[in-house]
Amino acid sequence: MQKISVPKESKGLKFSGSWNFCVGTGRLGLALQKEYLDHLSIVQNEIGFQYIRGHGLFHDDIGIYREDEVNGEIRPFYNFTYIDRIFDAFLERGIRPFVELGFMPSRLASGKDTVFYWKGNITPPKDYDKWADLIKAVVSHFIARYGLEEVLKWPFEVWNEPNLDSFWKNADQSEYFKLYRFTAMAIKEINPDLKVGGPAICGGTDYWIVDFLNFCHNEKVPVDFVTRHAYTSKAPEVTPHFYYQKLHNSTYMLDEFKQIRELIDQSPIPKLPLHITEYNSSWHPHNPVHDTAFNGAYMARILSGGGDYVDSFSYWTFSDVFEECDVPRAQFHGGFGMIALNGILKPTFHVFKFFKSMEGEILYRDEQMLVTRKDNGSLALIVWNVVSEKGEGFEKELEIKLPVIFASAFVQRNTISEECGNPWRTWIQMGRPRFPSRDKVEILKEVVGPLVTTSREESENGYLKLKIKLTKNEVSLFRISEIQDESSSYIGLDDSKITSYGVNQ
Amino acid sequence: MQKISVPKESKGLKFSGSWNFCVGTGRLGLALQKEYLDHLSIVQNEIGFQYIRGHGLFHDDIGIYREDEVNGEIRPFYNFTYIDRIFDAFLERGIRPFVELGFMPSRLASGKDTVFYWKGNITPPKDYDKWADLIKAVVSHFIARYGLEEVLKWPFEVWNEPNLDSFWKNADQSEYFKLYRFTAMAIKEINPDLKVGGPAICGGTDYWIVDFLNFCHNEKVPVDFVTRHAYTSKAPEVTPHFYYQKLHNSTYMLDEFKQIRELIDQSPIPKLPLHITEYNSSWHPHNPVHDTAFNGAYMARILSGGGDYVDSFSYWTFSDVFEECDVPRAQFHGGFGMIALNGILKPTFHVFKFFKSMEGEILYRDEQMLVTRKDNGSLALIVWNVVSEKGEGFEKELEIKLPVIFASAFVQRNTISEECGNPWRTWIQMGRPRFPSRDKVEILKEVVGPLVTTSREESENGYLKLKIKLTKNEVSLFRISEIQDESSSYIGLDDSKITSYGVNQ
Amino acid sequence: MQKISVPKESKGLKFSGSWNFCVGTGRLGLALQKEYLDHLSIVQNEIGFQYIRGHGLFHDDIGIYREDEVNGEIRPFYNFTYIDRIFDAFLERGIRPFVELGFMPSRLASGKDTVFYWKGNITPPKDYDKWADLIKAVVSHFIARYGLEEVLKWPFEVWNEPNLDSFWKNADQSEYFKLYRFTAMAIKEINPDLKVGGPAICGGTDYWIVDFLNFCHNEKVPVDFVTRHAYTSKAPEVTPHFYYQKLHNSTYMLDEFKQIRELIDQSPIPKLPLHITEYNSSWHPHNPVHDTAFNGAYMARILSGGGDYVDSFSYWTFSDVFEECDVPRAQFHGGFGMIALNGILKPTFHVFKFFKSMEGEILYRDEQMLVTRKDNGSLALIVWNVVSEKGEGFEKELEIKLPVIFASAFVQRNTISEECGNPWRTWIQMGRPRFPSRDKVEILKEVVGPLVTTSREESENGYLKLKIKLTKNEVSLFRISEIQDESSSYIGLDDSKITSYGVNQ
Amino acid sequence: MQKISVPKESKGLKFSGSWNFCVGTGRLGLALQKEYLDHLSIVQNEIGFQYIRGHGLFHDDIGIYREDEVNGEIRPFYNFTYIDRIFDAFLERGIRPFVELGFMPSRLASGKDTVFYWKGNITPPKDYDKWADLIKAVVSHFIARYGLEEVLKWPFEVWNEPNLDSFWKNADQSEYFKLYRFTAMAIKEINPDLKVGGPAICGGTDYWIVDFLNFCHNEKVPVDFVTRHAYTSKAPEVTPHFYYQKLHNSTYMLDEFKQIRELIDQSPIPKLPLHITEYNSSWHPHNPVHDTAFNGAYMARILSGGGDYVDSFSYWTFSDVFEECDVPRAQFHGGFGMIALNGILKPTFHVFKFFKSMEGEILYRDEQMLVTRKDNGSLALIVWNVVSEKGEGFEKELEIKLPVIFASAFVQRNTISEECGNPWRTWIQMGRPRFPSRDKVEILKEVVGPLVTTSREESENGYLKLKIKLTKNEVSLFRISEIQDESSSYIGLDDSKITSYGVNQ
Repeated sequence: MQKISVPKESKGLKFSGSWNFCVGTGRLGLALQKEYLDHLSIVQNEIGFQYIRGHGLFHDDIGIYREDEVNGEIRPFYNFTYIDRIFDAFLERGIRPFVELGFMPSRLASGKDTVFYWKGNITPPKDYDKWADLIKAVVSHFIARYGLEEVLKWPFEVWNEPNLDSFWKNADQSEYFKLYRFTAMAIKEINPDLKVGGPAICGGTDYWIVDFLNFCHNEKVPVDFVTRHAYTSKAPEVTPHFYYQKLHNSTYMLDEFKQIRELIDQSPIPKLPLHITEYNSSWHPHNPVHDTAFNGAYMARILSGGGDYVDSFSYWTFSDVFEECDVPRAQFHGGFGMIALNGILKPTFHVFKFFKSMEGEILYRDEQMLVTRKDNGSLALIVWNVVSEKGEGFEKELEIKLPVIFASAFVQRNTISEECGNPWRTWIQMGRPRFPSRDKVEILKEVVGPLVTTSREESENGYLKLKIKLTKNEVSLFRISEIQDESSSYIGLDDSKITSYGVNQ
Repeated sequence: MQKISVPKESKGLKFSGSWNFCVGTGRLGLALQKEYLDHLSIVQNEIGFQYIRGHGLFHDDIGIYREDEVNGEIRPFYNFTYIDRIFDAFLERGIRPFVELGFMPSRLASGKDTVFYWKGNITPPKDYDKWADLIKAVVSHFIARYGLEEVLKWPFEVWNEPNLDSFWKNADQSEYFKLYRFTAMAIKEINPDLKVGGPAICGGTDYWIVDFLNFCHNEKVPVDFVTRHAYTSKAPEVTPHFYYQKLHNSTYMLDEFKQIRELIDQSPIPKLPLHITEYNSSWHPHNPVHDTAFNGAYMARILSGGGDYVDSFSYWTFSDVFEECDVPRAQFHGGFGMIALNGILKPTFHVFKFFKSMEGEILYRDEQMLVTRKDNGSLALIVWNVVSEKGEGFEKELEIKLPVIFASAFVQRNTISEECGNPWRTWIQMGRPRFPSRDKVEILKEVVGPLVTTSREESENGYLKLKIKLTKNEVSLFRISEIQDESSSYIGLDDSKITSYGVNQ
Repeated sequence: MQKISVPKESKGLKFSGSWNFCVGTGRLGLALQKEYLDHLSIVQNEIGFQYIRGHGLFHDDIGIYREDEVNGEIRPFYNFTYIDRIFDAFLERGIRPFVELGFMPSRLASGKDTVFYWKGNITPPKDYDKWADLIKAVVSHFIARYGLEEVLKWPFEVWNEPNLDSFWKNADQSEYFKLYRFTAMAIKEINPDLKVGGPAICGGTDYWIVDFLNFCHNEKVPVDFVTRHAYTSKAPEVTPHFYYQKLHNSTYMLDEFKQIRELIDQSPIPKLPLHITEYNSSWHPHNPVHDTAFNGAYMARILSGGGDYVDSFSYWTFSDVFEECDVPRAQFHGGFGMIALNGILKPTFHVFKFFKSMEGEILYRDEQMLVTRKDNGSLALIVWNVVSEKGEGFEKELEIKLPVIFASAFVQRNTISEECGNPWRTWIQMGRPRFPSRDKVEILKEVVGPLVTTSREESENGYLKLKIKLTKNEVSLFRISEIQDESSSYIGLDDSKITSYGVNQ
Repeated sequence: MQKISVPKESKGLKFSGSWNFCVGTGRLGLALQKEYLDHLSIVQNEIGFQYIRGHGLFHDDIGIYREDEVNGEIRPFYNFTYIDRIFDAFLERGIRPFVELGFMPSRLASGKDTVFYWKGNITPPKDYDKWADLIKAVVSHFIARYGLEEVLKWPFEVWNEPNLDSFWKNADQSEYFKLYRFTAMAIKEINPDLKVGGPAICGGTDYWIVDFLNFCHNEKVPVDFVTRHAYTSKAPEVTPHFYYQKLHNSTYMLDEFKQIRELIDQSPIPKLPLHITEYNSSWHPHNPVHDTAFNGAYMARILSGGGDYVDSFSYWTFSDVFEECDVPRAQFHGGFGMIALNGILKPTFHVFKFFKSMEGEILYRDEQMLVTRKDNGSLALIVWNVVSEKGEGFEKELEIKLPVIFASAFVQRNTISEECGNPWRTWIQMGRPRFPSRDKVEILKEVVGPLVTTSREESENGYLKLKIKLTKNEVSLFRISEIQDESSSYIGLDDSKITSYGVNQ
């Protein structure tokens, strides 16, 4: 039994909203789908992100860039039918685009190299002026449709992971800087207050960030923010249907956040905002870890601390409506999503939702818990027991002493664990049905919620003692608020006069 | 540990639908309210009754009977504005009226005696011909609006509890028979296939049933069914805000059902259908027992066996939107409803919902459990642990051997108990807020569902062994179905390659 | 043909929002009903009022004031179950209460006199201290539930039409002033920034306003606003089912507004806000004029000009869900509502909705039309042809010259008239079905909308000429905006190549 | 003025439901989209088809056919994630698939030839046994998911327009017969009562039908129905953004229906059901005729008579959510749909909806009108004025004498014309905005409905005379039903006492 005493006073730090500033999505073309939008509505109603970021704005399926031949001459045609529908749908659901500019429309591409099942073209433009025209046409259209005030709030990020040759031909840095320059100049030509940034690299080549900021500084190319991705998985073991990877522990990611922050601050353009525009445990959409209770518990430490270093970190992705490696082949298939197919909520979804209750000043934080307090004295506590070892057991007991400003407390505990709120486990018990009948989907929904229990606790000398048992990979949220007891207003109240019940419960 | 072995073969008895044939409601005028209809929608979506019965069809608030003075002459005016809206709303929600004809419109009443906070007039008509005209006008209107085929399905019950002087002036039997005769004749004049019945008495004076059937037989007055009410509560202890009563145990009610059935079968008109048009533990709307987990457990035995004796039994009532003793004064106040104010589901609601899974042949039934089997071999088991004694403890352990026709079973357990699905208890922990804020209502909704757990079990020699622990006043539903295992279709599946997990879960 | 030339420049007057500041409602208890709330949702979605005002806050059906007897002592019990549900429903629909404090709870009343079918008690309190306690309890509860910031926006009006003995026993002015004093003091004791006003009189005894303001001034009783009602109907001819009245023309009402404004400004407390908390043509809920196209046209002048004199004027009422003279007896029955039973929209509803398009500066206004212009140069024009004479004909032709800042204009015309958007007329053609079947209701909904026609018009020398024909009792809204023609972007466009069509349409 | 006298008695012919048996759709993959499903919901709520047919079941985007490599061996993998979602969505909306089996999954194809923007592979299978396995896997899955009883109602049609080399490589007939044989045999192997048919050809090569039926007869290959397509457009004039075509008149299509019926009846397998699985005026998705009022009027004759010859005819298509020639580039672009982008209803939609009122016996039918009568004597009349000539005018006047069995008739007229219910025209007036703002979309929705007018008419000697004026390309629906006049129940009714109104309206 570990004992923790939470101090009465905070160090003045408020819990930051970086964790729900932005969320990742499958390619934008999927946002035309009903299932996708149903999942997005759930996420927005229950968690609520400010921004959404994904690939494929310029991919052929959205059809923005086309060409007509008129009297032998080729003219660009900008088609906004689908992107208007998509951004309308985002804004209707209270979420703004964090606009990733890419990949290359095939008619504007210099080559045929593609990435993903859906064949995003990864080559530079064959004509940079046409590219700049496209950027200007698109941004101007957004302003015409949504108003300048709105579009000024949309960050524009140039390309995705150009440091990898699977995403940018030959991972050619100078070509990327050229692309960046043309893009940033085009955007600022529309309005100098529009926000543009890069280089959107993944981990492993952080010298790109240094080079990029030097480039912008030296060449006087505008940059408003820096972006980078972060995953904690190691080398994969690949099978036909799955991708298995070992993981670093979650503080590895926090260390990375910190290092990038330092790189920027040592650059000639320090203090630029830093957005982690993708993160997760594994970077592969067929890694079953994403479906587990472990993944939820694993994220808790990152969510509790990421905001210390970065302006946002964007979980990749909100939904298993996703197609990078083909159409999903089963109800659970290791997809990135917080929400599995058929609207089934994964443990990670609930852990994110728990963090919505973390408001106000940070009273206490360590490797296994976070405590916040609101102005009215209400407390919220998230505590987790992430266990990388296999097998049963690994229970943990804590006794937490919490400072309260009231005599009687109402305590609500919401719990996610291997046993509760874990539809993946029930699905395995069902025999892993790939395409479950509607009846089975209904059962998966019935098991989905956290276990909710409540109690009344009395404080002593300004403190409340909570004794907590955590099972393996459990995350529990405790919400503690003052009780205003109205029992005395019930004239003649006596529960002991009810069959089976004792003096007032 | 009690051991029970469920036989492989049933005795050929199907589980009867009498339990969800009909449900009770507060006076019909309340059916204009949004909260009432929201609750009815929940009940119909989640449980699904065929009929709904309540008082007040002719009460002044619905306004059916009015009079105009034209040139000194009084003419009846039948106003269907509200009753059309109410019956439309019922039918839209898939539920038909079980029409109770009463109480007396004040303009047609012979006296001023009333019952309830809402002042239902309980006196005979001042003019029986006008009463008969009213009946004919109303029934004819129903046929004009909804079609004869529909209205032929609506039972018409004459008055409510005429054996009590609080509901029928002086509890005058011969006056009731007069009312019955005029009413039945008026209805059959419209169409002889319409269904009419009575005498709708409460317990304690069953000689009324004998007298009533003799009267109908001797006087050749039509009767299509018999109705009676049943409550198991004893003498009350009354306080300003509550009504406390001790209870008989639940088999007391089943015995009553059986006795009335026998009375009818010994009468000159045997085999008439018998409808229990009201039942509950307590007959008072401010008795807190209705809010408890005990009440849910207590109902289980009645639901499991009532259909052996009666054609229907109608739980009084579906919702706490109810006004017999004034506007409800608190979130929980001992109301009859399965659903408390603000759409909070009580334990009794869940127990009813559990019974929806009881389908097909009865394999086994005793005082604590019921097992049914569907044609496809799926089993459903409800088991309960009703405890009248006060205090903690009273756990019960069972080992149940169930016959199954498949090797591997998926088992889903839904549990309601003092700890789970018991918003009354959480509300007490909150300090019994009379008019809870929306935040508190949200919390009460979060705690409302049953605890759902699942497992995979392997059968041995055609049997499955379930070891079950039941806590005090727990009711658990087990659903057991065949597993079709698809694991082998996942090429390369190996859960042990996921951090924290072992060989296939 | 009348010619009107609208000037290019306004006199700097903006069209005021007084017309949709507040709307009237049947007694608050009706707000529990689903039909009522469905109508309110329609009104709020389509028109959008800021406040709603109606009688009956303290009427017994809402049940706020009750008493318990405990050990022989009588204690007040304040029950907020229903009023919370009602005010929650208002605020959910984006409308705030304009709180009328009345009538008297029967347990607090000094007499038995009542008003209306629903028997509102109109007598002074039997104990003014208990009344003040009630006021304080209620206002404090509102603040506890909705927050002070919210409740500070709610005007509290003391009683209703105390100048009539049907609403206030003996129309006793000094007793009203006593009531006002106790009430105002109680409210200000809770928070001095809460707003309180009166005297809520109807027309005909405006010396009450003078007396009231002198009373407040002399006795130092707080008053934040003045309220008065206004109807334009003359003496009634009463039949069993209808109430017929001749009407003054609509400027009569504007004159009244102006006179009251002047009375206040001449008082010792000038510049107090003036709220007309009820107005309509007839003050009787069974006067068929309310259902007519004439009534819609008649309101247009009032809506166009009322804001010149008063801070708000509140149409009595938004819906025919109303019971002052019994339950409504037919689909159309002369009810006050903008919306008839079954959600059928009356012409008056549409005229109100038309006024939502009137935004920005007033360019032109006369007895038959109003023109406003928005910052982007878009124009809105409402023109009406109210005809008091009976019979056919009465068409009117206008030629209106409108200043526009663009070359090509898109013109949308929405028309309500005897022929269009007039379900009352269709219902008469159907044979006036009192309780129409659902099929007939569907037909009434199909005929309900305004006739919408559109055209493209070219301006000449900065002006657009509209030639308009108005039929009897027609109201038309014209919305005129700039056309951005994109036709040239369609390569190869030639409508003449479509069968039946000519060169580009 | 043309005079028409409708006879009192019909010839016993009921109006057939062939017209709304089936409707066409863009490729099935689009059915994942929200906009698509929103449109389908509208169509099903307002018109209601029984079946839906479209291309692309086996197209790569739905992903049914995939292959895994396991230890060097290639195994088929059948992925039902998307098709389950799609067919679930259809069935939820009350519409069943009319299953077109095609095109070829790329991994199963013998070549790389494709059709359409979305690249449907049109080559024969590289391995007919694998094709048969695919068919069996898919049909078996449908039965497992939806039940045999359901799937027995689904017609299976083999391929699409194999008579064209753009849809079937080299339009190779013997290869098609091979495909048909393998497919039909595979289906019947699952269950011999499943329905299979072909050859799904377009017009111009009807010898295929003869050959096909001979082939089936001679080779004892099962066939349950015959399918063919029908369009009335002539050679196109192509521009970059449009496809213009002249049209035959609409009886041309009815003649085709008749001829195919005769071909079948002269074959060795006569009396086979005939389904026209596609029809429209033009067969190109960028022909503006589809957006016009003319197209609606043009369809009326086909809808009124097609059922004389064929078992169903399926309008191609219900919605402009369609991609055969790229993503739609404008709000209106000549798409096939009854519903344009953004849920805007075209005139053709309304004409279809009008036909829903045509029920019961056909009393009268000619080239410009259809009259039906229901059992209760209600009449429905559709009358149209299709005009191929360009220019203004072309009004038509009719006097129609209709037999009625009641004295007073309520007449409702719903009108679609160049002026009413024609959003294309309003959109042109707006300047043809390609990607209209939400405000503009709202305006297009406001103008969308038919003009609805009503009247009361008195019959004379069992006849009602309707004088009707039809403008160019107008279609009007008249519904005529009996009036039950309740006016006399209103005591004191006198409309002349209402300002502006005369003796009872």
